[in-house]
This record gives sequence, structure tokens and C-alpha cells, in this order.
Amino acid sequence: MSKILFINPVGHTDFDAPIERYLNHHKMEKTTVEVKSLSRGPHHLEYHYYEALIGPEMLQMIKAYEEKGYDAAVIGCFYDPFLHEAREIVEKMVVTAPAEAALHIAATLGNKFSIIVGRKKHIPVMEENVIKYGFKDKLASFKDLEMGVLDFQQEVKETEKRIMAKARAALDEDLAEVILLGCTIQFGFFAELQQKLGVPVIDAVLAPFKYAEFLVELKNKFNWQHSKIYGYEKPPADEMEKWGLAKGEQGLFIR
Amino acid sequence: MSKILFINPVGHTDFDAPIERYLNHHKMEKTTVEVKSLSRGPHHLEYHYYEALIGPEMLQMIKAYEEKGYDAAVIGCFYDPFLHEAREIVEKMVVTAPAEAALHIAATLGNKFSIIVGRKKHIPVMEENVIKYGFKDKLASFKDLEMGVLDFQQEVKETEKRIMAKARAALDEDLAEVILLGCTIQFGFFAELQQKLGVPVIDAVLAPFKYAEFLVELKNKFNWQHSKIYGYEKPPADEMEKWGLAKGEQGLFIR
Amino acid sequence: MSKILFINPVGHTDFDAPIERYLNHHKMEKTTVEVKSLSRGPHHLEYHYYEALIGPEMLQMIKAYEEKGYDAAVIGCFYDPFLHEAREIVEKMVVTAPAEAALHIAATLGNKFSIIVGRKKHIPVMEENVIKYGFKDKLASFKDLEMGVLDFQQEVKETEKRIMAKARAALDEDLAEVILLGCTIQFGFFAELQQKLGVPVIDAVLAPFKYAEFLVELKNKFNWQHSKIYGYEKPPADEMEKWGLAKGEQGLFIR
Amino acid sequence: MSKILFINPVGHTDFDAPIERYLNHHKMEKTTVEVKSLSRGPHHLEYHYYEALIGPEMLQMIKAYEEKGYDAAVIGCFYDPFLHEAREIVEKMVVTAPAEAALHIAATLGNKFSIIVGRKKHIPVMEENVIKYGFKDKLASFKDLEMGVLDFQQEVKETEKRIMAKARAALDEDLAEVILLGCTIQFGFFAELQQKLGVPVIDAVLAPFKYAEFLVELKNKFNWQHSKIYGYEKPPADEMEKWGLAKGEQGLFIR
Amino acid sequence: MSKILFINPVGHTDFDAPIERYLNHHKMEKTTVEVKSLSRGPHHLEYHYYEALIGPEMLQMIKAYEEKGYDAAVIGCFYDPFLHEAREIVEKMVVTAPAEAALHIAATLGNKFSIIVGRKKHIPVMEENVIKYGFKDKLASFKDLEMGVLDFQQEVKETEKRIMAKARAALDEDLAEVILLGCTIQFGFFAELQQKLGVPVIDAVLAPFKYAEFLVELKNKFNWQHSKIYGYEKPPADEMEKWGLAKGEQGLFIR
Amino acid sequence: MSKILFINPVGHTDFDAPIERYLNHHKMEKTTVEVKSLSRGPHHLEYHYYEALIGPEMLQMIKAYEEKGYDAAVIGCFYDPFLHEAREIVEKMVVTAPAEAALHIAATLGNKFSIIVGRKKHIPVMEENVIKYGFKDKLASFKDLEMGVLDFQQEVKETEKRIMAKARAALDEDLAEVILLGCTIQFGFFAELQQKLGVPVIDAVLAPFKYAEFLVELKNKFNWQHSKIYGYEKPPADEMEKWGLAKGEQGLFIR
Repeated sequence: MSKILFINPVGHTDFDAPIERYLNHHKMEKTTVEVKSLSRGPHHLEYHYYEALIGPEMLQMIKAYEEKGYDAAVIGCFYDPFLHEAREIVEKMVVTAPAEAALHIAATLGNKFSIIVGRKKHIPVMEENVIKYGFKDKLASFKDLEMGVLDFQQEVKETEKRIMAKARAALDEDLAEVILLGCTIQFGFFAELQQKLGVPVIDAVLAPFKYAEFLVELKNKFNWQHSKIYGYEKPPADEMEKWGLAKGEQGLFIR
Repeated sequence: MSKILFINPVGHTDFDAPIERYLNHHKMEKTTVEVKSLSRGPHHLEYHYYEALIGPEMLQMIKAYEEKGYDAAVIGCFYDPFLHEAREIVEKMVVTAPAEAALHIAATLGNKFSIIVGRKKHIPVMEENVIKYGFKDKLASFKDLEMGVLDFQQEVKETEKRIMAKARAALDEDLAEVILLGCTIQFGFFAELQQKLGVPVIDAVLAPFKYAEFLVELKNKFNWQHSKIYGYEKPPADEMEKWGLAKGEQGLFIR
Repeated sequence: MSKILFINPVGHTDFDAPIERYLNHHKMEKTTVEVKSLSRGPHHLEYHYYEALIGPEMLQMIKAYEEKGYDAAVIGCFYDPFLHEAREIVEKMVVTAPAEAALHIAATLGNKFSIIVGRKKHIPVMEENVIKYGFKDKLASFKDLEMGVLDFQQEVKETEKRIMAKARAALDEDLAEVILLGCTIQFGFFAELQQKLGVPVIDAVLAPFKYAEFLVELKNKFNWQHSKIYGYEKPPADEMEKWGLAKGEQGLFIR
Repeated sequence: MSKILFINPVGHTDFDAPIERYLNHHKMEKTTVEVKSLSRGPHHLEYHYYEALIGPEMLQMIKAYEEKGYDAAVIGCFYDPFLHEAREIVEKMVVTAPAEAALHIAATLGNKFSIIVGRKKHIPVMEENVIKYGFKDKLASFKDLEMGVLDFQQEVKETEKRIMAKARAALDEDLAEVILLGCTIQFGFFAELQQKLGVPVIDAVLAPFKYAEFLVELKNKFNWQHSKIYGYEKPPADEMEKWGLAKGEQGLFIR
Repeated sequence: MSKILFINPVGHTDFDAPIERYLNHHKMEKTTVEVKSLSRGPHHLEYHYYEALIGPEMLQMIKAYEEKGYDAAVIGCFYDPFLHEAREIVEKMVVTAPAEAALHIAATLGNKFSIIVGRKKHIPVMEENVIKYGFKDKLASFKDLEMGVLDFQQEVKETEKRIMAKARAALDEDLAEVILLGCTIQFGFFAELQQKLGVPVIDAVLAPFKYAEFLVELKNKFNWQHSKIYGYEKPPADEMEKWGLAKGEQGLFIR
Repeated sequence: MSKILFINPVGHTDFDAPIERYLNHHKMEKTTVEVKSLSRGPHHLEYHYYEALIGPEMLQMIKAYEEKGYDAAVIGCFYDPFLHEAREIVEKMVVTAPAEAALHIAATLGNKFSIIVGRKKHIPVMEENVIKYGFKDKLASFKDLEMGVLDFQQEVKETEKRIMAKARAALDEDLAEVILLGCTIQFGFFAELQQKLGVPVIDAVLAPFKYAEFLVELKNKFNWQHSKIYGYEKPPADEMEKWGLAKGEQGLFIR
């Protein structure tokens, strides 16, 4: 039994139901999944300030779900916000996120990959992450669609058309062998694109979800989970208690 | 006239007065400085979860001070938390932080440097920053004191003794030419250490403060300030308004 | 249903049965696994010449198992020999190997890791692979046990003692957060080591086996499999036919 | 009081007066500046052989000005010629140069930058410097104007037009967020370009001059100056005396 | 006296005579050269599976020629297949290959270079080698001719035309200063191309052949030969004997 | 016929005769060699200021010898001073230097190497060169002897003893496979060290001399010489004439 929390780290529930259906359709038998967004906050995370705002509530949510017995959390944004922090505060839960998962998969499936993003805005921080995760030499290119995140599912035909054009250019000109959809809200497009393009197209919702299932399997079978020394060493409970930092008990940060 | 905000991004005021005195002692004539901590939160930022908690209030504070007419903000923690985010939300203010400033200065003063930190815990994220900022080939080593951040000013003699021993090892064995004190709460130690060691010892409070004065000078004279396209492009005001993300108006994130 | 071939790419069967039991014990329910060694060849692969010798038969075996309907192959040597070549000749099968899988897992579980190898001899090529896969900045150190590969399971107590000593040094001195056992023939040691060390210890047999199960899941659900353009483009069947390179038909390379 | 020497390291005085006016216009109150060229030598430094020729006289000049009580020297060429050597022979003076200063500033103001140079000839050595200083991952591109250095101020309109076109391409196609003018003789253009482009445009005369003011402030307040161990360790006076290498006393190198 | 073996590691003799003539024409006086292909195998090595097939026979051939008193072997394919392995099994012979040799020469003759290959297929593994050998920052670009290896000498005019066009683009757009012909079967084209282009064009047959002559000179004069510790440590003779891995005695791998 | 100039770029002739004998002993038959020092200047080049002083005369000497019909010049200092500049001003001559040549050879003979230098002072610039040439991942370590350059040949026994100790440590602890003697004045030691250590020990005089012979062979046979576009493009003759920069005609720089 693997209980997985998939977080839409935004302040609206529009995508919760469709993503939950999507995941339930693609999950392993023994998995149960809950998709959850935040009680309030920005409606997308294109800006890094927006990311900062969702940190406290999202991290508290992850802790709360660990206490409820969940095995894994997926932070559903391709910037992978607060991934390091989340791994620090959990004890046995595993945490992953779209960029990490999709990059690991892409690096296994091909020699170079391109990442399709909404706007040029998204590229600097994503490129920092690609470098940080170690995949700089495997990055063929970023390609931007000149679309905002919230448009992807509004104008499905246009989105598809633009992704197709940019992906083809990435394959032909930049020598990408794999395409990554660099935003969770590009979910649902991969299958048809993949068939037309003839190369793997990695979906940013499914990749971290499946990677979470994989990590839970490793944890349950072998106790392989995030190392808790140095980088992911957990804050001391008494300190958190004293300063009111745990569980939002004083309504301090996540009221 | 340069108005600079130095943030102690923690939930207590213990270091506000001493650091304000320290900065007032070392500022340029035309500078005025205010040191400010947060209304609540962790007492130190050794854990990355603690960092996440201070984001919303600190970023709102930076925006508020920009509106008050401040020229610069210094984020007073050697992890440089939310530096990118802060640069995104400001319009004309400049923002800097200890690691960025100290690394730029150290790279100008010597060929290699070592960074003295409290505990091994601090190293992974700091090393990521050193690499991200471009100074990997100039990093001689990290040295840890096996002390928590809040002990530095409690046991001054012991702190000094340990820094001295680790710094000497860094010079002799790792070929460091410059020493960086990798925590703002190591403030005040540099002068004596420097005299004894015979090499520059960079203080993590003064370095970003002076770098802020420098950036303000560039801004005022040449309009050189953070580029507002792509990575630091600002969120649209109407979007922030609609979703209640600006100025803590709904007491949402920074009550 | 996932059918996985685990190859012991050596010319003896000594480890086939124990590894098959080991994998059967740890597999997912729907997985079936076959462990197979070569018809002849070196008894270990410490030398790179030995690696070269096993290429033709091993690659032919992989092709043959793809035709039998297998979903995945694991090349059971931490040098990851012929991984690129194997991915080139298969059509839909996924192929992985210990270093790739263990490095991806380790990079997800901690910030830095150390790799425990038998002899210094093993390090240069393994280090090339660590760099090639992108994990150079996450490598804390290699540690050698001064033991040959065939000794690991002969002198279990001594092996365990040496790994423990080297792993502790890696954690304390090199800031590793995760330990990798850098040889498949170190199988079976991880659980006790992990308990004593308090950090994840990655087993070089289980890591690629579980990674193969994961990749099969991706393939079966999403058709994500090795991209077949450029680097893994398959040789043309007619060319192989003409030159007698397929299926060992002339007994040429794999007699 | 900060006394700064700005060197035009060429054998003519054409740009001394305009650059001195330029700097006096932009200096801090307490700064005095002298702009000085060499007694003889090439009229520009586009070729690296020309750079080599100016070394002895320029380095002697720097030493002489340190003895006169100057606080800082700026080596006025974007190749940063003899920067390391200059830091070695001074005792307390600080020395900087355009590429170093402009790159540090640009890396603080944006995520990526492009450098506008006169000719393709200039790129290889400048690119080596960008890498050496650590800013490779922040370099969006070099753009060449197909103009020689001495043409910039001759054909002001044409120069401006070409910079504008190349800078726009850098922003739109290469994702630069900041533009660097990669030659001191491009001085004076930045303000208008910046206004039109809407991003910071860094001037190669002002950047190192202001960086020198900043370094002098650090030196005067904190004794932070170039470390004198290892890389910048000074040659022994007696050795220089014996071999006639100091102060041009035998008219040897700088007659 | 230098005895050099040049291996065409393919299963046909079509290029043996022309390459032997070519080398004899360009050799130093004291050199003797033998060009040899394999007894069977693929007719070109564009696919990595094909490379794997030629390993055992080629390595046995190298050992056999060492025993015959040869001083050096050249592995005649720009993928440099089994170069590491070959250096491991020899005792005093030196071994080199086209990419290694051509890259070393190109890095000495210019600041950046481009590599002209037949098809995009060839690039991923070659790029890995460029990085592994250390020349990533000197690589201007790969350019593909959209031709298979066996076409180069069939359609000489077309080959020449395409190389010329791609090389000019590499010089003009990518700032290459040197051109490398990235396939041995492009032999014979360099001289005319070089004359037309005005920059060095490195031939993939002559480069490693001359590098081999150079290495033999170093070996004969100074005993500088491949280090036999760690990476190139030789397999023990008794082990090879016991397992039948030496000299193809059982007809095992090279029948 | 290969005419090679070996420059001792110092202001005394003490090592000219012994090095000329050394080279004559080890040269190829058709080679003639002249060893030449400067008319005046420092007696060693440990300090970078000293390097700067020798530039003009040394570069003029290289030009003069090209006009005399020499084929190659070797710049005899392991800092490789003015190598780029020399390649720029020559037309057909080839130029090399110890670090470049020794690093290329070492990278061919082993996987990792260590460089033995006199003092820690020498390391920062040499390390920059190792990185610039591309060999950072192959550098095992620098080891310093705590000896000045001029002591090496004074105290032969002590020098030998120290090199031996440091080299052994490099092999055992740092996994070096090849040893580089990082100063030309360590000439003559390699043969005995090599025999005792059992790994190649590269001499900093012989390495660039032999590399020069090799480059001359390439030049004479194939017209492969330094590319004269971009980085090594030559200054225009008329400009040099007009400004008095050629041939020391006005006694300007090399009186």
C-alpha cells in the first residue's frame, strides 16, 4: 500500500479533480492518491515571489500528511519549490517534484533533451535546477511557447500546435532525443505528441507521481529514504515547539 | 543619500541593536541604515525549513521598505534566502545578501578562499550557492566549527579560538588565500583574526552591507539596477491584487 | 506483468542462484525475473579488457530476450558495460545498469554520496561514469577496500568490517550522506550496514533491478522507452543481415 | 579620500581627457582620479602581442602610483591585461579592471548577460576570462560589431546603431538580461542604449572605476585588500634590487 | 625504428591498401606501418553495437602485434573504441586513436574547433568523448553532412562540397578556428579544403598516425608509456590463462 | 630539417649550455636546436611580475627567429608565459610550452596526474592553466617541495628526495598515475625517479621540446599550423610599423 499526496501548490482547486482522475487512471494497483491544493494563494507559480508565498502552508501540509501515514508527497510545480526543505522536515516520507523526476527519467531514456516551457520568464530558475541536478551536458535547449501557464488547458488546440512546432525544432536543430513538458499544467498532452514525434514526451504530472511510487517501493522494501544527516537533518522538535514553528499551532505562518 | 534596510530574518531582536551599531560605525557618510528582524519566527536559520517560514514576511517587508523610499535591502543570512524572489518583487531597489557579496569580494581579493561555518549541516546548501554563483574553482574548502549559530556570540573566546584553528588549516593545507566567515552571527570577529592570520577575513554582515552601498551608488548614478526581464520580471499588480498577494492586505501570509 | 532479465556478465554461474533468490525476495508481485550468466568468459570484470570480451555475447543475449518478450534487462556490473550499445540494439525493451540506477537513487536521497569499491583499479572508469552521468558535484569520494571482487562473499565478516570503516570515514570526513556499494558482488551487505550507519546504503543489485521495474512501468503505462533517434538509433536490419551481425547466426561473435 | 589611477594602457593620450572628464562627472565626492596613458606603445590593444608590450611600463606605473599614495588602479582594457601581475607587485593598493568589475556587477543585476565586442578577434581571450572568473553559466553570448576599437568614437551614430541591433538580438534570442559593453572605448553609449533597451547596459570605464571606489572603501574601513600569500605574494625586494627589476632604475624595461 | 599498426576495425579490406599507401606517403623515415582490418565484422562502425562486436578480435590483434614487436597501435575509428581497454592489455606498446589525437592537435593549433561528421547519429558518443578528454570549452560545434560513412569516398565531389559548406558555416557562425574531419573515411580531403578555407583541417587518419609516431619517440627515448597502475593496470596472466582469455587460444572470442 | 629555438626566458645564461646538451642528446636526427636566454631580466620566473617583464624581448626574439627560418619555439617556463601572444605574432612557426605539452602527454599516458612544484606560490596560476587547457578532471593534485626554483640544481640529492616523497604520496593517496615535474629547472631528474616509482615522470624541458618536433612534423608534412583567424590573428604590419612595435626598431621595448 502506497499513500501518495500530490500537491497543486496554488490557491484554487480547478486542477485538483482532473489531476486526481489522471493519476488514478495511471497509478499502480496498490497506490492511493490524494490531490490537494492550498487553502489560499496565487493561482499559478510563474513568479518566484508566488513560490515563496506557498512555502509555509505547503510544508506544513507535507508534515501533516506524513503524520497521517502518507508515504510520499509530490510537489506539483516544475520549479520544484521547497523540495530540499520538504525533505528536511519529513522523517520517513519521501518527497519528489516534477523537474527532478522528469530529468532523471529523460536522462535514462535519451542522450539529450529539450524542455518546453510557457514563457522565457520560466527559464532562468529552471536552468539553475537543471545544472544543480547535474544534467547540464544533457540539456539540448529550452523552448518557450509564449503562453502563460493558465492558458495551456484553455486553448488546447493552440497549445498542442505550439508544443509540436517547438518540439520538432528541438529534435531537428538542437539534437534533443527526448521532450520534457516543463509545466504540470501541460498534463494530458504527452500521448498524442509522442505518437506524432516518435520520441518520448515526458509529462510533468506523471513523471514525479511514478517516481514517487518508485521511491515508496524502495523505502518499503529496503528502508532507502532521504538521508537525515547534514543537508536533510531535521530541525529539533523542542526548538520548533519553543518557537512555535511546528504544525501551525499558533496559526503563525499558515493561518 | 542611501537608505539601506538590513534584515535579521529571525523572530527575535537580540542582534538588531548590536548590528545596527556595527553598521552605523562602518557606513559611508551619506548612508542611513535600519536593522530589522521579523515579527515572529525561528531564532536562527540553520534549518532550511526555518528559511521557508520567513519568506513571506521578509519579502513583504522588502516591498514595504521599497515603498518607503529605501534604496537597498540586505538579507542577513549566509544562505542568501529568497534573494532571487526579492529581486523579482522590487522595482528599483537593489537587494543583496551575505554569500553573494562575500564571494564576489573574496574572488577579487584572492585566488582561493575557505568558508568557516558553524556545523556540517550548513555546507550542502552553501556549496550549491557557491557553485551557482560561479565560484566553485575558487573554493578551497568549507571548515565547520562544530558550534551552533547562537553559540558564536555566547562563547566569544571559544569561537575565536576555533575559527583561528580552522582558518589556519585552510591556509596551510587547502591553499586558501582569503577566509570567509560563513554566518552573519560571526560578526565582530574578523578584525583580530585578520591581523593574526595576515590575510583578509571577510565579515558576513559588513560584506553585503558595503556591497549594498556600492549597488546603490550604481543605481543612483547610472540607473544600473536589477534587470526586470525574464528571471526578475515582476508579477503583474492586477494579478497580485486579485489573489490578495500584495502587501499582506488580507493578513494572509504575514499576519 | 514485467519480465526482467538480470545478467551476471561473467563466465560462471556461481552467483546466479543466490542473486535470483535475492531478487525474487525483493521483486514486485507482477515481476518475474531470470538471472543469467554467459556461456563462457572471465569470472569477474575488474579489468576493462574482460569487459570488452563479454560485449558480443551479452548484447546478443539481450536481443534474444527482447525477442522472447522480456521487458527489461539489467547489466549486472557497476562499470555499466555496453549500456549505450544495449539501448541501441533493443526496440522496446528498457535496459539499465547498477551505476546509473544507484547514482540516480542516491542523488534523490541525499546531497552527496561515496562509493565503496574493491580496489583503486576500479576508480578511474567509475569516476568517468559519475561525471558522464552528471553527478560529479554530488560525489563525496571513492573509498577502496583493498579487496578483489571475488573475495567479498568469501570473507563476509572482513568485507563487512572494511566497508563499515570506509563508510564511516566517508560520512565523517567527506560529508557523504549516502553510501553506494560499488560492486554487484557486495550484494546482501546493505541492510545491516545501513542500520549501523544510520544512512541509506544502496545495493548494486537491487538498485538497477528496482529501477528496471520502474522503467517497465513507465514503458507499459506511457510508452516511455529509450528514444530511438540519434544516439540510440538502431542499426538497419538489412545491413546486419548482410554482414552476419544479428543473432549470432554464423556463430561469429558468440560461438 | 580615495585616490584612483585609471590607466589607458596605450601609447597615445587621445582618450585621457574625455575619460577623465567622464570619471570626474561620475565619481564619489571624496574620490580624486587621474587618467594616464603610457609614454609609448600601441594605439589600441586588440592584439595580444600589443598587450604584452604594455606590461612592463604599466606595471611600473602602478608601483610608482602606489608609492605616491594612490589607493587603487584601474587597468583600462576589457582583456584585463596583467591584472594578476599588478596585484602581485602592489602592497596595499587595490587593482581592478573592466571585465572583472563588469562581470561581477552584471551577475548581480541579472541572470544572464551578453558582451558586445568590436570584432570576433576579441572573443577567444575574453571568453577564457569569463570562464576563469566563474561566469560561464551566466554568459548568454558574445556579439561582435565588425568594427575596430578606434572606430567606436569616430562613427558614433553607426556604433550606436550596431550596438542597439546586436543588443536586441541578445535579449530576444539569447535570453540576456544585462548587456555589457566589452571595450572601454565604447564609453558614453550606455545611458541612451539602456533607456531604449529597458535593461542595464554596463559601461566598461565606469564599472571598474566604481568597483575601485568600492574596493578602496573596503580597504580603508576593514583592511580588506588583496591577499599577499600564494598567488599574489610579492617578489622579494632584494631580488628585484639585485636584478634591476624595480622602478625601472636601469631604464631596462621602461626606458 | 618505429613499427606501427593501423587498424581498420571493420570486416572488409577495402580501405586497407589506400590507407597504407596514404600512411607510407606521410610517415617518417624510420617508421614502418601495417594497415590491417578484421577477419570479419561490420563494414563500418556507425552503430555502437557494431563497435562492441569488434572489441575482442581487435584487442587480441593489438596484443598479438605487441608480441611481434610493434611499438604502437592506432585504432582507426573516430569513436576511439576500446582505447582504454587496449592500453590496459598492452605492456609497452602505445595506443592511440583519431579523436584523442585530433583533439589534442586541434587544441594546440587554435582556440575553438568544429567537428564534421557524417550523420547526427554520430554526435552523442563523440560529444561524450570530447567532454571526457577535456575539450568541451574548445568545441565550437558539430556539423553533420547527412551522409553515411561508406558514401564519403563514393561521391568525392559531393562529399567535398558538403564539407566545405559546413566548415565555412562553422568558421563564420560558430567561431571555429580549426576544422576536424570526424571520420577516418574522410581521409584525403583535408589538403584541398585547408587551402580553400585558410585554416587547419585535421585528417582523422593522419592525426593519430603521427601522434603514434610521436608517442613511440617518447617511449623509445624516455620510457614514457602508458602508466600501468590503476586505470591501465594489466589483468594477471594466470587469471587470463585459467579462464582462457588470452590470445584467443580456445577460439573463444575471436574464432 | 627542424630548427627549434628553446628559450630560457630569464636574464642569465647559467642553464643554456646544460639544457642545450640535454636537448641535443635527446633530439631527433634531423633536428637542430638552439637554447637562448634573454639579454637581461629576472633570474627565475617564480613571480608573475617577472613574467610580465620578459614578454617584449621574448616575443621579439621569437619573431626574429621565425625570420631566420626557425620552425618552432619553446617557451621554457611551466607557467607557459605569453604562449597565446607568441602564436599570434608568428606566421608559420609553431610555438609550444611546458605545461601545455606535458599535460597533453600525461593525459595520453594515464588517467590522472600530479604536478610537483617548487612552492605553493606557483600553484594558483598553474591550476588556472590546467583548467584552461581542459585537464581539470585529470588533475589528481599539486604537490609543493618547499624549494625555490634556483635550489633544484644546487641541492640535487635533497631535490630528488623531496620529489620522490611527494610523488609517492601523489600515487598512493591522490591516485595519480603519472607525475609531472612542474618546472623546467627540474630537468634531469625524471629518469631515475621514473625507474623507482614505476610510472611515467614527465620532464618539463623534454616534453615541450619533443612536442615541438611533433608540431614541426605536422607543419612540414600537412601545413597544420596555428590557425590565423580570430584568437591568433596577426596584428597588421602597417599598424605595427606606424606605431613602432615591430622588431624593436626604435629600441622601444627591448633595448
